[in-house]
Amino acid sequence: MLVYEGKAKRLYETEDPDVLRVEYKDSATAFNGVKKAEIEGKGQLNNEISSLIFKRLAEKGVKSHFIRKISEREQLVRRVEIISLEVVVRNVVAGSLAKRLGLEEGTPVGQPVVEFYYKKDELGDPLITEDHVRILGIASSEDLQFLRKQALAVNESLKALFAEIGVRLVDFKLEFGRGRDGAILLADEISPDTCRLWDLATNEKLDKDVFRRDLGSLTEVYQEILNRLRGDISHV
Amino acid sequence: MLVYEGKAKRLYETEDPDVLRVEYKDSATAFNGVKKAEIEGKGQLNNEISSLIFKRLAEKGVKSHFIRKISEREQLVRRVEIISLEVVVRNVVAGSLAKRLGLEEGTPVGQPVVEFYYKKDELGDPLITEDHVRILGIASSEDLQFLRKQALAVNESLKALFAEIGVRLVDFKLEFGRGRDGAILLADEISPDTCRLWDLATNEKLDKDVFRRDLGSLTEVYQEILNRLRGDISHV
Repeated sequence: MLVYEGKAKRLYETEDPDVLRVEYKDSATAFNGVKKAEIEGKGQLNNEISSLIFKRLAEKGVKSHFIRKISEREQLVRRVEIISLEVVVRNVVAGSLAKRLGLEEGTPVGQPVVEFYYKKDELGDPLITEDHVRILGIASSEDLQFLRKQALAVNESLKALFAEIGVRLVDFKLEFGRGRDGAILLADEISPDTCRLWDLATNEKLDKDVFRRDLGSLTEVYQEILNRLRGDISHV
Repeated sequence: MLVYEGKAKRLYETEDPDVLRVEYKDSATAFNGVKKAEIEGKGQLNNEISSLIFKRLAEKGVKSHFIRKISEREQLVRRVEIISLEVVVRNVVAGSLAKRLGLEEGTPVGQPVVEFYYKKDELGDPLITEDHVRILGIASSEDLQFLRKQALAVNESLKALFAEIGVRLVDFKLEFGRGRDGAILLADEISPDTCRLWDLATNEKLDKDVFRRDLGSLTEVYQEILNRLRGDISHV
């Protein structure tokens, strides 16, 4: 049974009440759903990339909802209640932060920055502060400290992983959820849909900005990321 | 010599290089200058209210740039370099926070909330986090701690002051500046232009929202605030 359909994925129940099946769709969306397209192969690429990254994170001690990939488009994951926050980590100024602060994309931020956005399409996913999270009753201040710490740990692991394959991790968005026992687990996906990835040598964009800004073929750059992660070191 | 002209005030040099003369204008602006009007008497009212409030704050130990009122429209103030932050304190959800969080105006916030906005008209004065302040190089994290503490102290004093005259202090905006010695002083003005003030009994708005939302005569409600502050207790 379908339990949730988002912009890029569908979630189905399985026989195990604690396990869901995720199906990655071929839909690409940007600007809060204003720009849309169907891009054949995108779902499969993101499923493969996200599975690979969740596996690597697990090896480095970062727990997530990911159990295993079961088909070209599908994963099994732990069932969690998604926390209504987008947790963004930034190593370099880009995207909405460049606009907000009036700074050039590419400006370094010094220490990595963690931001919280309220996951609410009808409000346009606004930036919020920790006080706002408290007012909304989304998470306790202990939860926020945990999310911040986890997000920074994921950043360290991902930065190293991408550096090895010649990619700069500019920024990324994480989502977390609570399991039945109340424990908070990293959830959603980690892919070029949710990360900004720039080629270390050329600064070429290898992420969804290719779609947002009409810079070329989305599947070509996602395939490039997958090839590099698999060790097909075409970038050397 | 005119050294600065803002939306509501002009600043002039005096013979003393450390002292400026402030002239309160009759201009009312809202929505980042999109809505504008000249309202006779507004400058004088805000000069009187702000002078009175800065004096009361000084009695309670909160230092500001205010030296003294010298005419109907003018004050003398310490010369400071304004820090490019709007420091907002909120006791009740209203205005932009209601929109951001999708909450009803009037929702209590629990503990008072301090927010920082980047004072930059061309960017629309966006909400920013403490990390963003660091990236922009506007203030150190020690400075931010100081601003937060000062803002909360001002809130406690103002809340009490307004409660005595039957007014709920919903939220307000502060600006701070650095003097020649580097010390940070409360600056700008504190008036119904920079505070949301609701009548405790009726919830009637006694602040600039009357202008923003076309709710009646601005000078009438500003005069009401001034009368109450002066002890002409017309509200009883």
